[in-house]
Amino acid sequence: MNTAFPSVMRRLIEEFCRMPGIGPRSAQRLTFHILRSSPGDVERLLRSIRDVKDNVRSCRVCNNLSEKELCRVCSDSARDKSKICVVEGPNGVISMEKSGVYHGLYHVLLGELSPMDGIGPDELKIKELLDRVREEEIKEVIIATNFTTEGETTALYVHEVLKPFKLKVTRLAHGVPVGASLEYADMATLQRAFEERR
Amino acid sequence: MNTAFPSVMRRLIEEFCRMPGIGPRSAQRLTFHILRSSPGDVERLLRSIRDVKDNVRSCRVCNNLSEKELCRVCSDSARDKSKICVVEGPNGVISMEKSGVYHGLYHVLLGELSPMDGIGPDELKIKELLDRVREEEIKEVIIATNFTTEGETTALYVHEVLKPFKLKVTRLAHGVPVGASLEYADMATLQRAFEERR
Repeated sequence: MNTAFPSVMRRLIEEFCRMPGIGPRSAQRLTFHILRSSPGDVERLLRSIRDVKDNVRSCRVCNNLSEKELCRVCSDSARDKSKICVVEGPNGVISMEKSGVYHGLYHVLLGELSPMDGIGPDELKIKELLDRVREEEIKEVIIATNFTTEGETTALYVHEVLKPFKLKVTRLAHGVPVGASLEYADMATLQRAFEERR
Repeated sequence: MNTAFPSVMRRLIEEFCRMPGIGPRSAQRLTFHILRSSPGDVERLLRSIRDVKDNVRSCRVCNNLSEKELCRVCSDSARDKSKICVVEGPNGVISMEKSGVYHGLYHVLLGELSPMDGIGPDELKIKELLDRVREEEIKEVIIATNFTTEGETTALYVHEVLKPFKLKVTRLAHGVPVGASLEYADMATLQRAFEERR
């Protein structure tokens, strides 16, 4: 670290370096940006950071990010309350919402099964999912965990524990991404896309 | 902007987007990072930002970034006090210090001449440079403004106003790529440029 910087700047550069995707060069640029910003702009940034930290919590029902006890989706009377889409984290909700195809409810597991890391069913919000399926009028559960080893393991597990219920349980389809050339699809994806042809 | 985010998160994403080199995707990633960080880590980040804003000022003598009245360089008795290296901004000092070839003093102009933007000699710390040359025992002034149009104009101007003094006035050699900011010069280039100053 360059000693030509005052120590408070070196400390801020180190703090920025801890953030994802920020290297030493970007951290330096961000620190200069802070230095040059008006006091009002810096206060607004500080307040925004604090607001996120103080006001964002998990929805009491689905564990999605929320500022209130119930998240926007759970408290929206226009949503289809007969469907639950199960995702690993809040990012999953955001991706599904961006796609605009889904209008039901969510259930965020807050993790994926990973026995190697000691993450079993009790670490995830699976019991809470079963409670909802028992108590709400759910007709379909769409499993939208990631298509990674952990995500697939979680999908299988959720599928298994939902078997005793009279429910349609589906999984997002595998396949070649829209707009992608076959040439660049990996073999496993292509095989699944072939098997799941319709 | 995705409405699946709580509004406080949307606001923080917008704040991050204002920062240099941060696009919507990085801003979203940084916001999730804040959300996941421990309260202690977030407090440390907030304190670091505030410390930079509150404690970094200009050195009374050379206008370099400093936490005290005199910057590290000006208050270092080991520096060669017969040389002044003239740079546009604090970034110039940092680049020169990184190169490790220079052991004299600095003078930060806090800008470069740009008649199109209404920035004339009075907007820069040129009068203060002349005062130092008059009052201190300066034997050489090394002009290390950027090799851009504004930097070259400033170099010519500084050279001109220093003519009446009995001084060696040099300019970093054209080892620095033409049109590039000092900030982006690699170390070897900067060292060559320093050795070949004319």
